[in-house]
Amino acid sequence: MTFTSHMDRALDEARKAGARGEVPVGAVLVGADGAVLAAAGNRTRELHDPTAHAEILVIRAACAAAGSERLPGAALYVTLEPCAMCAAAIANARIARLVYGADDPKSGGVAHGARVFAHPQCHHLPEIHDGIAGTEAAALLRDFFAGRRTGRDPTR
Amino acid sequence: MTFTSHMDRALDEARKAGARGEVPVGAVLVGADGAVLAAAGNRTRELHDPTAHAEILVIRAACAAAGSERLPGAALYVTLEPCAMCAAAIANARIARLVYGADDPKSGGVAHGARVFAHPQCHHLPEIHDGIAGTEAAALLRDFFAGRRTGRDPTR
Repeated sequence: MTFTSHMDRALDEARKAGARGEVPVGAVLVGADGAVLAAAGNRTRELHDPTAHAEILVIRAACAAAGSERLPGAALYVTLEPCAMCAAAIANARIARLVYGADDPKSGGVAHGARVFAHPQCHHLPEIHDGIAGTEAAALLRDFFAGRRTGRDPTR
Repeated sequence: MTFTSHMDRALDEARKAGARGEVPVGAVLVGADGAVLAAAGNRTRELHDPTAHAEILVIRAACAAAGSERLPGAALYVTLEPCAMCAAAIANARIARLVYGADDPKSGGVAHGARVFAHPQCHHLPEIHDGIAGTEAAALLRDFFAGRRTGRDPTR
């Protein structure tokens, strides 16, 4: 599987999240053997859980299934630059590779703001690939927020 | 209730976490009206969940109970400086006040490393009080890790 096919799946999760009225961000976690371990979109509103970002949901699901707090060799595909919370969770889970789509200058914590992986305190630095299907991921978010501003139902 | 009494409860949660073989960190979340909304210690090992830090557990529990992603007016008491993941979750949940015990130069994300609240991208800055019962909180952690290094069962 290529970067693109896993990111296509993450984009599909993002679209499904948007259809549920959630901010359209999706993530897929892939094991060292290439098998998909978990896929999810944001569910912060549905679950009343500010930590239920797509990245956290796939990490929690895959760790529960593996019976381990760590996922060595795993790759996380996510449509948007992770925030500081998710970036630190990625480090905590020892994920080997992070592939993300759109930059997030407003809330990102990888290339912006807290730059979680850029400090000596960060216990684990994944290999990072950015800008994979970034245009499509950004368009999903732009359309979602434009719909909310104009009062148009973004889920249609 | 004073800072100290809530921190005493957090220290008790930390001790219980250590007795379960978890890193001894405890947290208490208090509502705007002073009522305790949730209390927890680390459960990362038990739950196979790298996000199951004490802070995340109390935020998720209190948000689920409140039916809201946000806890305006709430105060979080935690025995150790939050890591970047927990600091960003505290911002996401719009927690009004963060009171913590021991500094964590190795993994902290408030006064060290990513310094999550110190960036313009941080959407919410809580009032922060550090060093509350810090000596006791640090001693719990020191004893726990000393026990692990010497092979002594730290849960006894």
